[in-house]
Amino acid sequence: MPGKFDRPNENDIRFLQEICGEKDVISSGPLMDDYARDEMPWVKGYPAAVVFPESAQEVSEILKHASARRIPVTTRGSGTGLCGGAVPTLGGIVLCTTKMNRILEIDSSNFTATVEAGVLLTTIHQAVEARGFFYAPDPGEKTATIGGNIATNAGGMRAIKYGVTRDNIRGLQVVLSTGEILNLGGKHAKNSTGYSLMNAFIGSEGTLGVVTQATLRLLPLPKQTLSLLVPFASLRDAIRAVPKVMESGILPQSIEFAEKGVIFAAESYLGKRFPHRTAPAYLLIRLDGNSREEVTSAMDLVGNACLAAGADDVLIADTPEQQSAVWDARGAFLAALKSGNEVDECDVVVPRDRIADLVEYTKEVAEEVGVRIESFGHAGDGNLHIYVMRDTMAQEEWEEKLPRAMDLLYERGRELGGMVSGEHGIGVAKRPYMEKSLSEDEIALMARMKSLFDPAGILNPGKVVPLSGS
Amino acid sequence: MPGKFDRPNENDIRFLQEICGEKDVISSGPLMDDYARDEMPWVKGYPAAVVFPESAQEVSEILKHASARRIPVTTRGSGTGLCGGAVPTLGGIVLCTTKMNRILEIDSSNFTATVEAGVLLTTIHQAVEARGFFYAPDPGEKTATIGGNIATNAGGMRAIKYGVTRDNIRGLQVVLSTGEILNLGGKHAKNSTGYSLMNAFIGSEGTLGVVTQATLRLLPLPKQTLSLLVPFASLRDAIRAVPKVMESGILPQSIEFAEKGVIFAAESYLGKRFPHRTAPAYLLIRLDGNSREEVTSAMDLVGNACLAAGADDVLIADTPEQQSAVWDARGAFLAALKSGNEVDECDVVVPRDRIADLVEYTKEVAEEVGVRIESFGHAGDGNLHIYVMRDTMAQEEWEEKLPRAMDLLYERGRELGGMVSGEHGIGVAKRPYMEKSLSEDEIALMARMKSLFDPAGILNPGKVVPLSGS
Repeated sequence: MPGKFDRPNENDIRFLQEICGEKDVISSGPLMDDYARDEMPWVKGYPAAVVFPESAQEVSEILKHASARRIPVTTRGSGTGLCGGAVPTLGGIVLCTTKMNRILEIDSSNFTATVEAGVLLTTIHQAVEARGFFYAPDPGEKTATIGGNIATNAGGMRAIKYGVTRDNIRGLQVVLSTGEILNLGGKHAKNSTGYSLMNAFIGSEGTLGVVTQATLRLLPLPKQTLSLLVPFASLRDAIRAVPKVMESGILPQSIEFAEKGVIFAAESYLGKRFPHRTAPAYLLIRLDGNSREEVTSAMDLVGNACLAAGADDVLIADTPEQQSAVWDARGAFLAALKSGNEVDECDVVVPRDRIADLVEYTKEVAEEVGVRIESFGHAGDGNLHIYVMRDTMAQEEWEEKLPRAMDLLYERGRELGGMVSGEHGIGVAKRPYMEKSLSEDEIALMARMKSLFDPAGILNPGKVVPLSGS
Repeated sequence: MPGKFDRPNENDIRFLQEICGEKDVISSGPLMDDYARDEMPWVKGYPAAVVFPESAQEVSEILKHASARRIPVTTRGSGTGLCGGAVPTLGGIVLCTTKMNRILEIDSSNFTATVEAGVLLTTIHQAVEARGFFYAPDPGEKTATIGGNIATNAGGMRAIKYGVTRDNIRGLQVVLSTGEILNLGGKHAKNSTGYSLMNAFIGSEGTLGVVTQATLRLLPLPKQTLSLLVPFASLRDAIRAVPKVMESGILPQSIEFAEKGVIFAAESYLGKRFPHRTAPAYLLIRLDGNSREEVTSAMDLVGNACLAAGADDVLIADTPEQQSAVWDARGAFLAALKSGNEVDECDVVVPRDRIADLVEYTKEVAEEVGVRIESFGHAGDGNLHIYVMRDTMAQEEWEEKLPRAMDLLYERGRELGGMVSGEHGIGVAKRPYMEKSLSEDEIALMARMKSLFDPAGILNPGKVVPLSGS
């Protein structure tokens, strides 16, 4: 099937240069390496050209040309994805959004921000917070673009209270592979006007269209935050405390879990002591609110709920320094595990009362397969990040053990009522697991949606769904 | 095109009886009148048969048979829709969900409720509240089924804080017209596993598949509520106060607006005095929280924000009696306008800072066309309900004036950045306005989605998108 695509020739490169200007097209040189990969280490593919359009109109011209010429187009933001979703595995054109990087409007009456797809998440957070607003989604990778967040329906630590990216998008501008520019949704909060095309594009990883702009829902910036570090005698006890916390009536901004192994790794990585070291498992809880009184009263309720559920102690972090001691460690978990090692991750999501079952099962898998497995994640929303660690394994052993471990983990995730990806997406690396996990009918319907939106099959071919096209 | 459908014959009726039992199929008698209409007065169509399946398996058998025989199937819950969406305008089978009415599970660890499609919204609210949980969406019509709420992506008064139906659905069971039963989503809060088929069905008004079960997101039941009635010198002043209220950091559960005409109508209808009568316009604000202190402190912030924005006064309703005086009136607005009159409504949504523009424009339209127009709605989320009143008009005059008024209202809604329907859906009555309001590309894509999901075109034909089918 890949044979059906054409490789861009000199005329195609010239066409891209005419549309975007010579300086915004790269087709050779050492920079090409950067566009042959994302943060998934072993998925690689070189594009014939990288183009940096600056408007939806330019994107439209590029896509019409590529559709007519049957050239694959892989959209890419910062390239921080973990599943190979932005890697041009079949060559062709990489359409890089990083020059569409303007914040177009922060609307203080309607509480919306309208931004181009290439704006970084961190830039959005800073810009809206400076105006007293809050863009709630908070995925770990702050240098991702908002376009990438939309492509993967990124989640993050605040999802338990504020939802994921999907829940915080009011409008999208999207270019179809046939060149049409759609403006979907708007600034309004409700919409029952026909099918939600907007939701089809969110989470579609650049396979159905190219997102060029988004209108984001803003909230008033919470005036106070306060964190709790809660040690437990076991992870099972920690997970069991979560519904008790929520029954108190408080919805924390975040409830994260970690076992001590990951915390020790973060301590070494940061060269900084974690505020507590002796418990096997922890909940890290962040509360937000409008006043000091509100968060301290929430703290009392949540702290008591944890103690009633068997917590060893409740440590309060209310100064910026104390809070950063907890959250800097949490922010460093992934980097600490990856540091000097090769890892692959399983981003499964399960009903949150099944987290402990799955983490305990990772230990069985580690023993059965003979690999080290570490995990941490979002106790509030059931999303685990499970890391299979290569350590000193030879390539052959790694290639044999890794898929065995992954197969077992995804299979159990499915049995527990879960899904293959909670927030990182499918890309190319997770496709086989998705195909085993969802029903054939569902996969077939997704493949038909791909053909409907992208009839030539040029958009990020081979990602999410099998290769398609007429 | 309607000629392409077949009318059910005796064999088809017998087939339905074999699948569901004789008592669960109606094909004659006075009851048929009830299934020939919904709450939109002038859209009518008689089905050849009404069937009451009790499981997804039965729905699957019915749909496979209807697809093969090219018989239209219109899914219906309580029939409380306002746009003719559940009326079998092309005859065929009405598939009534009211016997799929079991609450299957309230999961207190994962904060979810799994219910069949025919359960009434009021039944869900009562059942979960009795267990200390909260299903946040609160559309005005409490006797609607949850299936109907999902079909129209119903909104309601709490959307500003808690989102609409879409934001509160975790999983769906859906039957395709080709008979496949899909189980989409689950109990988990995050999902980035392929395209969101689930979101395609939400708001699709029974045209893409038949929803048979839903897993709903629950929250802890707020322990305290408190309401404010805030009189303003004009509607424009009232609308301008809304962002000021939100800048205080408080997200109210509801912010509704009304002008005095509608309030007087509700007073007469209920035979009950509203707590204030002299202002031209009002905001009705409900706050919720976890403690008395939290809601009273929110009340101070919100009340002061209203006064700073020019409110004449801030009346506090904190006893159940005081709160019901305000909210019973709000709940009676629609019934009061419809009482002894014929009305048609425009359920447009605009960015919330354009509400006053649109309401002022309704007065221009009333004068230009020569009709009475009343309106009220959701100031927090930009969703207006605008009613064109027939009063004593003769049929001919009404048929001439109503579409003129509606055309003008929808046109201005579009110019203000809005959408045809905020929460009631499109059905058959709003289709012409949707077609004028969205781009041709968007309408074409919706029509192709319809063909993809329902290749024989039997599901609720003629609703939302034009008639389709191979």
